[in-house]
Amino acid sequence: MAESLTKEKEKEVDLSEFPHINQGLAGIVAFSTTKSFIDGQKGELIYAGYDIDTLAENATFEEVCFLLWNDRLPDQQELDSLNKQLRSERGLPEPVLNYIKSTSESAEPMAVLRTSVSMLADFHDKETGDSDKFRQNKAISITAKIPTIIAAFDRSRNGLNIVEPLDTGSTAFNFLYMLNDEEPGEQAEKTMDLCLILHAEHGMNASTFTGRAICSTESDMYSAVTGAIGALKGPLHGGANQAVMNMLMDIEKTDSDPVEYIKKRLEGKQKVMGFGHRVYKTMDPRARILRGMSKKLSEETGHEKLYEWSEAILKTMKDEKNIDPNVDFFSATVYYSMGIKPDLYTCIFAMSRVSGWTGHYIEQAENNRLVRPRAHYTGEKNLDWVPVEER
Amino acid sequence: MAESLTKEKEKEVDLSEFPHINQGLAGIVAFSTTKSFIDGQKGELIYAGYDIDTLAENATFEEVCFLLWNDRLPDQQELDSLNKQLRSERGLPEPVLNYIKSTSESAEPMAVLRTSVSMLADFHDKETGDSDKFRQNKAISITAKIPTIIAAFDRSRNGLNIVEPLDTGSTAFNFLYMLNDEEPGEQAEKTMDLCLILHAEHGMNASTFTGRAICSTESDMYSAVTGAIGALKGPLHGGANQAVMNMLMDIEKTDSDPVEYIKKRLEGKQKVMGFGHRVYKTMDPRARILRGMSKKLSEETGHEKLYEWSEAILKTMKDEKNIDPNVDFFSATVYYSMGIKPDLYTCIFAMSRVSGWTGHYIEQAENNRLVRPRAHYTGEKNLDWVPVEER
Ligand SMILES: CC(C)(COP(=O)(O)OP(=O)(O)OC[C@H]1O[C@@H](n2cnc3c(N)ncnc32)[C@H](O)[C@@H]1OP(=O)(O)O)[C@@H](O)C(=O)NCCC(=O)NCCS
Ligand SMILES: CC(C)(COP(=O)(O)OP(=O)(O)OC[C@H]1O[C@@H](n2cnc3c(N)ncnc32)[C@H](O)[C@@H]1OP(=O)(O)O)[C@@H](O)C(=O)NCCC(=O)NCCS
Repeated sequence: MAESLTKEKEKEVDLSEFPHINQGLAGIVAFSTTKSFIDGQKGELIYAGYDIDTLAENATFEEVCFLLWNDRLPDQQELDSLNKQLRSERGLPEPVLNYIKSTSESAEPMAVLRTSVSMLADFHDKETGDSDKFRQNKAISITAKIPTIIAAFDRSRNGLNIVEPLDTGSTAFNFLYMLNDEEPGEQAEKTMDLCLILHAEHGMNASTFTGRAICSTESDMYSAVTGAIGALKGPLHGGANQAVMNMLMDIEKTDSDPVEYIKKRLEGKQKVMGFGHRVYKTMDPRARILRGMSKKLSEETGHEKLYEWSEAILKTMKDEKNIDPNVDFFSATVYYSMGIKPDLYTCIFAMSRVSGWTGHYIEQAENNRLVRPRAHYTGEKNLDWVPVEER
Repeated sequence: MAESLTKEKEKEVDLSEFPHINQGLAGIVAFSTTKSFIDGQKGELIYAGYDIDTLAENATFEEVCFLLWNDRLPDQQELDSLNKQLRSERGLPEPVLNYIKSTSESAEPMAVLRTSVSMLADFHDKETGDSDKFRQNKAISITAKIPTIIAAFDRSRNGLNIVEPLDTGSTAFNFLYMLNDEEPGEQAEKTMDLCLILHAEHGMNASTFTGRAICSTESDMYSAVTGAIGALKGPLHGGANQAVMNMLMDIEKTDSDPVEYIKKRLEGKQKVMGFGHRVYKTMDPRARILRGMSKKLSEETGHEKLYEWSEAILKTMKDEKNIDPNVDFFSATVYYSMGIKPDLYTCIFAMSRVSGWTGHYIEQAENNRLVRPRAHYTGEKNLDWVPVEER
């Protein structure tokens, strides 16, 4: 194992002195991985050997799933067999559907997704094996069911019929079909597929890291994916794409000038969602691709104004703070152009990232050590007990 | 803020060279905290100022909850008010109860707990504030409901009536009452209360750390606790107490000599559950307290044999490997003496640790930075695309 090369006998931490606190674990290397590589200076992203631009141009989401689970691309037979298995796994167990139908209109989509994925565990065979194949079957099952959960929830909360999944077509095609009860056109399918490819994997982001930490206790894959969904939900992570759209809609509603709007936020020391990244110090390559898509789609659907605002915001952020957009900034307008409701954007992120989460789960399970850092205690010590009446 | 004292501008990690990989984040200081202090050399544990022995002798679990949420003990009025609020929050929303009733006998208790807690989010007010008070109300609500979930699930899977929570009594009393449909005696209540105190908090263990990572994306408390339950479930963490009991039962079933049984495991390079700890290099102080409880209870309930085996195993592990027992080793026999089913032990751990998880959530939310480490990439780069037909 590569890790053992550098496995030094770790030193005991001396927590009696004030130690260096690794805020947000920035710059701490926690694992080695074959899943992806990020060069934050050059703005480069590789999934298991292939540049993101190569994948965006050539791959399908299903091929990317195979790649992230196996560290190589499938041959025709393997791809056919994966597609078959994914399609056959799309249906939801009755109790999960019942739960989704029972949720009220005000339930948060990411919370419903988290609960539904957690519930799926009840219907999967008990963990009877810990082979790679066994784990990959679970990954396929979860990946196949997430789009069905999202679409069923969205239709149910709008009082619409729930559309059964197809047993044909790509993940992207089937998702849009279930969401709209209408087969998507070729371009819509392609756009969705590309979004799924771009969001699939990104190293030790907070949700993937959370999933690996859960896996490290030898807990199951449902636990890891459920925890990862919970982490993705936050606005500093996947929740940012929804926040970007809310911001654009707020600019529209308040009839604001986007540049002034952003400047005011920055003056108020508020963060602008969709900008900044722990690792990229230049334009995120995914943002570059999504920017082009956003331009094209906005023009085609008559939302040029949103795209122009986005460009104005981008320029303002660069001028004022020298901060570049991240993956969430332009994905918001892309989803908007496709007619998808803003509060589903983060769910679509999850629908894609589950491939990376489960790829990392498989990798962690094969070469595991419990994730257990330390904290520095700054509280008091040796306090005497005082009975409650005397406090 | 204490952290800012040591907040150095982090260096860019140079991932082009093979870096030091912090396996399991051992010895990495991730946060500062006022929640607890562990001295792994001396075998010392402090919750927010008070030694674990002091708390075990004097406190109630509810006082410990207040302590972990507020970093001080409550006065009489505050304690009364907390108890009142906890009691009034014990009931479950109808859909959560319906889900619990719908689970099959084969559902895993920790999976059902994880799903139920996740589902609770649908019934809590939308996040309308981010004050401490607001977060503490959520913590109270979750802490109050977990015992009800566990008891309802256990009764439902056994075809028994589900017992409504009382609006009086301690957490420990009410839990045993709901579990058995019978008021517990004073000693049973005290034993359970002590177990809850001992498991409440333990620094940057994997589940608490998972919860803080989820919180760091500014995600909600339900997400954090759901993820933490998923992490606790694993046998390298909370799942160990159930594994200890399974081991003892296996020794009984196979009519083995416990010393030989353990030696054989060690020879086969298998871990012995309930032993070892990342931080303690001596006897865990909680194990010390639980050892005494286990002895006493085993004698009282006629399970002396189990206790004797435990002592023989302890001696063998010390002689053979110089590894001491952790919190999970003797808690198993304590719960067993109380007549609780082994597959609920980890749930009881969660019922207690939720106080620590939510305490850390509150602390993290007050001084947050996104948790986002790095990984070292060991895969290939710049691979050329080959169309599927040619692979
Ligand atoms: C992604 C993110 C959490 C990375 O955080 P990080 O590595 O911890 O960086 P910090 O939060 O320490 O930011 C460093 C500096 O840049 C500023 N900054 C970073 N992102 C910013 C943003 N989106 N808007 C305004 N200022 C920002 C910070 O205020 C900080 O300034 P300071 O040094 O003057 O205090 C952060 O950029 C952010 O919150 N972005 C907005 C949310 C988002 O889009 N998330 C999706 C990520 S894919
Ligand atoms: C808790 C635990 C995960 C800590 O792990 P860690 O800090 O990563 O320690 P490691 O797994 O690297 O163990 C260090 C050495 O002690 C051995 N060891 C640790 N715990 C052991 C156990 N319970 N039984 C047998 N050997 C054990 C390891 O095999 C390893 O030996 P090696 O150096 O010859 O390979 C580990 O002790 C364990 O798995 N214990 C059993 C599960 C358990 O009880 N968990 C509850 C914790 S509260």
